[in-house]
Amino acid sequence: MKTIHTIGILGGGQLGMMLAQAALKLGLRCVFLEDAPNAPASLYGQVYTTSELDDFIKASDVFTLEFENTPVATAERLANLDDKGGMFPPAKALSVAQDRLAEKALFNELGVTTVPYQAVNTLDELHNACDTLGLPLVLKTSRGGYDGKGQFVIKTTDDIAQAWAELGGAITGGAMPAPLIAEGFINFSREVSIIAVRSQSGNIRYYPLVENHHQNGILAKTIAPAQGVENLNQSAQESIAKILENLNYVGVLTLELFVTDNGLIANEIAPRVHNSGHWSIEGANCSQFENHIRAVAGLPLGDTSIVKPSVMLNIIGKYPDENQLLSIGGAHYHHYHKSERDGRKIGHITVMADDLATAVASAQQTLNNC
Amino acid sequence: MKTIHTIGILGGGQLGMMLAQAALKLGLRCVFLEDAPNAPASLYGQVYTTSELDDFIKASDVFTLEFENTPVATAERLANLDDKGGMFPPAKALSVAQDRLAEKALFNELGVTTVPYQAVNTLDELHNACDTLGLPLVLKTSRGGYDGKGQFVIKTTDDIAQAWAELGGAITGGAMPAPLIAEGFINFSREVSIIAVRSQSGNIRYYPLVENHHQNGILAKTIAPAQGVENLNQSAQESIAKILENLNYVGVLTLELFVTDNGLIANEIAPRVHNSGHWSIEGANCSQFENHIRAVAGLPLGDTSIVKPSVMLNIIGKYPDENQLLSIGGAHYHHYHKSERDGRKIGHITVMADDLATAVASAQQTLNNC
Repeated sequence: MKTIHTIGILGGGQLGMMLAQAALKLGLRCVFLEDAPNAPASLYGQVYTTSELDDFIKASDVFTLEFENTPVATAERLANLDDKGGMFPPAKALSVAQDRLAEKALFNELGVTTVPYQAVNTLDELHNACDTLGLPLVLKTSRGGYDGKGQFVIKTTDDIAQAWAELGGAITGGAMPAPLIAEGFINFSREVSIIAVRSQSGNIRYYPLVENHHQNGILAKTIAPAQGVENLNQSAQESIAKILENLNYVGVLTLELFVTDNGLIANEIAPRVHNSGHWSIEGANCSQFENHIRAVAGLPLGDTSIVKPSVMLNIIGKYPDENQLLSIGGAHYHHYHKSERDGRKIGHITVMADDLATAVASAQQTLNNC
Repeated sequence: MKTIHTIGILGGGQLGMMLAQAALKLGLRCVFLEDAPNAPASLYGQVYTTSELDDFIKASDVFTLEFENTPVATAERLANLDDKGGMFPPAKALSVAQDRLAEKALFNELGVTTVPYQAVNTLDELHNACDTLGLPLVLKTSRGGYDGKGQFVIKTTDDIAQAWAELGGAITGGAMPAPLIAEGFINFSREVSIIAVRSQSGNIRYYPLVENHHQNGILAKTIAPAQGVENLNQSAQESIAKILENLNYVGVLTLELFVTDNGLIANEIAPRVHNSGHWSIEGANCSQFENHIRAVAGLPLGDTSIVKPSVMLNIIGKYPDENQLLSIGGAHYHHYHKSERDGRKIGHITVMADDLATAVASAQQTLNNC
């Protein structure tokens, strides 16, 4: 097996930055493929633009990604380089995660429960989906779209025309033309996610289910572990294990789920470290970032158990008053060195506490004060 | 007050590296003054050689150090730059820490108990010290010397000639000519240290006393918190507070102490983050590195309380088998990116556990296996 010194990461945002923080502690180095100037990861290793792909490849011993919209062809090319240590996760995981229809099809093939759904290629098919699935439903682009973008909630038949006007163009136009997907509406009490990591030898470790709260379609808060759903951990682990094994996945995978009266319903996967795992830097014995690096570098996996209950709050758009923020005990501040912009994730804080109620209250206080 | 973006650190070793790890998370940047090529800190910021001091100054908003043998004149020059945010710790702390006689004199002036000692400028004075203090005693250079170097234990009067032959030359020769110091021998049960941090507004926070174990004069293991000495924390805090306040100190200061039947005896200070505080990266709510950066940058101090009991083991000379090391649960590995060399600190691991006996046993197992 190839000795790994340098990990080539596709993407150089804050996820790449936190991967590098973990890699450097283990004696490894990282380089990044990223076109944005002053990307957060540039503080931790050499950045190559996509026009410098050959130099990026030369500098790397093994490859991974932090950007799930990495072209599948690029991942395949890197995976097939004989003199390198491989590309993790595999290209197939990327192609599944980039296509909501393929993703739902895989879930169903593996017996992982999803909402009912239908592909929509024409306005007629949209009308048909509204009849079959019932209203309300959510119409989404099957490719692209993140943080709530590329979605439309159809509440009554009067909304169909507008939904079609907004999203129908994505079927034949845009960067990645593809059908729409209509998803039946479900009543859920909570959004949770499970993060797991699989090693090159096939070992799997699981972080506990965590609870996610969104604002304007963007993750605002994660509570780790999720409260009152301990009995659902086994089901979540079984689902993500099936997906990991089917894809022969190596590295960290995230599965987003809804909690319903009838158990968990799978929403989507992210084939990478995930915002809902940032709490693990302090809150778990081995963070999602370190475990991903360990898996990619062929090292043994680390302990995913919780050190203390934690709450993670994203800093979105504007930096808080640091004097106030840092006055609050137990707040771990992660500044992404990004400029302020509406709706942009530019940092996060994690607050740990012996009891979670205290942690959440303390974190709320943090947000309110700054 | 000057807004701090970039901290200029004198020295670029592993302490500088770990300071930078903390600074970057807070949204700050670091630059380093360091002549050694490929220094560990170079992974985290620009390195300037001493011949590039002016550029280093230009790049920095405020100054600190990780290398306690920094020339006092340099520290004074940086402290007096009108357009910069200051030099922390103050130059006086450096001059005291670099001179065992000045250090012991300050301790005694402040009522901090030391061993009995005498300055030695001549062979006659050495004979006189042996008579006055009794044998055995430890003869040391008052300047230079670290990790057990520059010391001679005089057990009988027969050793005096050899001790003089080995160390007497330092009085008038070498890079820093200075008297020797003869220190009376004491019976101690344990070596401990206390780390405290003082902010620019004069707030002080204390880490708990930790227990240090040396091998061949080099720190091998730190147990945090020190066991069975909880009643000594107050005395240690009072001692280090007096020193911090006398020196108008800002940043992290370490005080090494001996535990005797009659309480604590002060050995020496280190005017910087310290190897006996590495456990705090994972084991304390806010690490010594982050607290030092907070103090230097004028930010509020962080919570010094313990998350879980920890043991820190230095990796000295040779890297362990990483596959074995990382298989042990709860081991946090810190690789310094330094080449292997006998007696050189090239990494450390910290193991946390709910009970310390388990942590120590697990850490010992780690060492034995790799």
